[in-house]
Amino acid sequence: MVTEDEAMRRAIALAARGLGTTSPNPVVGCLLLGPGGEVVGEGFHAYAGGPHAEIVALAQAGERARGGTCVVSLEPCNHTGRTGPCSEALIAAGVRRVVIGVDDPNPVASGGAATLRAAGIEVETGVRREEAEAGNVAWLTAVRRGRPYVTWKFAATLDGRSAAADGTSQWISSSASRSDVHVLRGTVDAIVAGVGTVLADDPQLTVRDLRDGTLAIKQPLRVVVDSSGRTPGNARVRDAAAPTWIVTAAAAGTDPQGRVDLTGMLTELYARGVRNVLLEGGPTLAGAFLAAGLVDRVIGYIAPKLLGDGRAALVGAGVGTIADAVELDFTDITQIGGDLRFTALLRTKSEES
Amino acid sequence: MVTEDEAMRRAIALAARGLGTTSPNPVVGCLLLGPGGEVVGEGFHAYAGGPHAEIVALAQAGERARGGTCVVSLEPCNHTGRTGPCSEALIAAGVRRVVIGVDDPNPVASGGAATLRAAGIEVETGVRREEAEAGNVAWLTAVRRGRPYVTWKFAATLDGRSAAADGTSQWISSSASRSDVHVLRGTVDAIVAGVGTVLADDPQLTVRDLRDGTLAIKQPLRVVVDSSGRTPGNARVRDAAAPTWIVTAAAAGTDPQGRVDLTGMLTELYARGVRNVLLEGGPTLAGAFLAAGLVDRVIGYIAPKLLGDGRAALVGAGVGTIADAVELDFTDITQIGGDLRFTALLRTKSEES
Repeated sequence: MVTEDEAMRRAIALAARGLGTTSPNPVVGCLLLGPGGEVVGEGFHAYAGGPHAEIVALAQAGERARGGTCVVSLEPCNHTGRTGPCSEALIAAGVRRVVIGVDDPNPVASGGAATLRAAGIEVETGVRREEAEAGNVAWLTAVRRGRPYVTWKFAATLDGRSAAADGTSQWISSSASRSDVHVLRGTVDAIVAGVGTVLADDPQLTVRDLRDGTLAIKQPLRVVVDSSGRTPGNARVRDAAAPTWIVTAAAAGTDPQGRVDLTGMLTELYARGVRNVLLEGGPTLAGAFLAAGLVDRVIGYIAPKLLGDGRAALVGAGVGTIADAVELDFTDITQIGGDLRFTALLRTKSEES
Repeated sequence: MVTEDEAMRRAIALAARGLGTTSPNPVVGCLLLGPGGEVVGEGFHAYAGGPHAEIVALAQAGERARGGTCVVSLEPCNHTGRTGPCSEALIAAGVRRVVIGVDDPNPVASGGAATLRAAGIEVETGVRREEAEAGNVAWLTAVRRGRPYVTWKFAATLDGRSAAADGTSQWISSSASRSDVHVLRGTVDAIVAGVGTVLADDPQLTVRDLRDGTLAIKQPLRVVVDSSGRTPGNARVRDAAAPTWIVTAAAAGTDPQGRVDLTGMLTELYARGVRNVLLEGGPTLAGAFLAAGLVDRVIGYIAPKLLGDGRAALVGAGVGTIADAVELDFTDITQIGGDLRFTALLRTKSEES
């Protein structure tokens, strides 16, 4: 016997297991409780094209779902995509009550709650809404805005430098931090870097085990912002380890300065199913993203080192005076190896007013 | 009844109450336990020239100290300064046993343990040595090196900027962080700033209550590094709120670049009784201190903001390549208001080898 609240916590935790493999779908977790409150099924959405969380849980529960309660982190879908609508499946299974974490903002799929209610099912929404929302923040934000959620990740010293005076930067952060970046990469759909970073460091931009180099089975799309097509033919981002999109001005259009139009690029990525983007270097590209208001979250790996000279971690974010600084809120501060990792969310304009 | 270990923890905690008011003396805390292990007296050294911790505790205990145990964070002094030697006072009081946290490295005052042993008293040293050492780190380091312990404090954005492109910097950090700086200032003997900071911000460099401006009773010495004597006659650092030393090249000598010789300046401060220095701005002065190997600890207030342009928090620390970065270890990471405060200790060369 679990309470509906406990079941929702579990559903949210299950949902997170799908991060990185469900786009363009959200992550969803689901528990089915029998009429006596016992768990009769659970599931999460693991892959786009695979069964939804509710369907996985219903298959486990079978007849035991009848008269029971479905606890699900996101409103059940109402449309037929690669799979049938979950709302209909829940009605057919004879579920008596559905408890929902957060509503589905996607106009194509939403309406599940209304369909369930019309069928006489008791529906409660907003249970642990904040946590359910946080667990799906990238997808929810992306769907609401029509562009991917963007996390800017950087590594720097205590004095905000990402390279020394002579250009050396390997390694500013600890091996524990670098491994953590690969975990982070494994949760996104695309990794974006500027051609300057490609020319300077020739990164592979893949998700891999740093101990033995083993590639993860699922690789994010590699995106190189390269207005004039300078990415070398033998650059490692062009290897067979993962798909790659070299974004030239011709492909995505340009801004008034003749650089790749980042908003256009993100719109195109969204159209390709990308919901969650990790922006990795360099400082000028990060500045252009920030200046355009296209960053949602910042994750920084701060090494306990001082340089005093060398490349700044961020350049040209369009801020001229302290009152116009880009403001964030820390949501997490953790020590990783000898480094400090912070996570901070950009304040939205409405929160500031 | 307390154990000697518990008594040492208490003695170390008591010692910290003297931070900022005992220099050139160390901070010391002391508990006296009667023959049955009961606390019969406690004390800490509060002011240079005032009674030592052991004397305060002995006065409380009176005859109850006879046959008992003295638990003290630092080796009892053995010399007659403004007060008589504590070793003699403990012998006269009939104490049977003395438990010491850390040995006194000061050649003038040390030898207390040997004197006690010669009088037949049982002496144990090194009880909670690491904590006792940490509680007195500034004084111990200063005495061992013959120059004050230097903490560099700075405030910056996530990208390591201490001012925006137009020079504005008020306020990068939160009011909670700024209040915390005044607590920190209250624990040191001197506050050091460069003339550039004086000319740019006209800071008062005092310890005060930021809500109503009330000055603390004890004020650190204000030290302005000003090789060519550019501090204006009406600068706030020259007001009557605290003593001030304007350090010109003529006063402290110069380095090969014609700047104030920082090592000479610190030696002079040590001679004046300063053991604990807070270095506050600007970035160039901090760089000069770091390049000269004169920083022991760094405390940074990192505001969750991004600028992308403007003055770097640190300039010219003499590091050319990443392998030569100044390396530190975090000892504390705390959220203060909306900001992040870190404390980090510089690795010494011997630890690196």
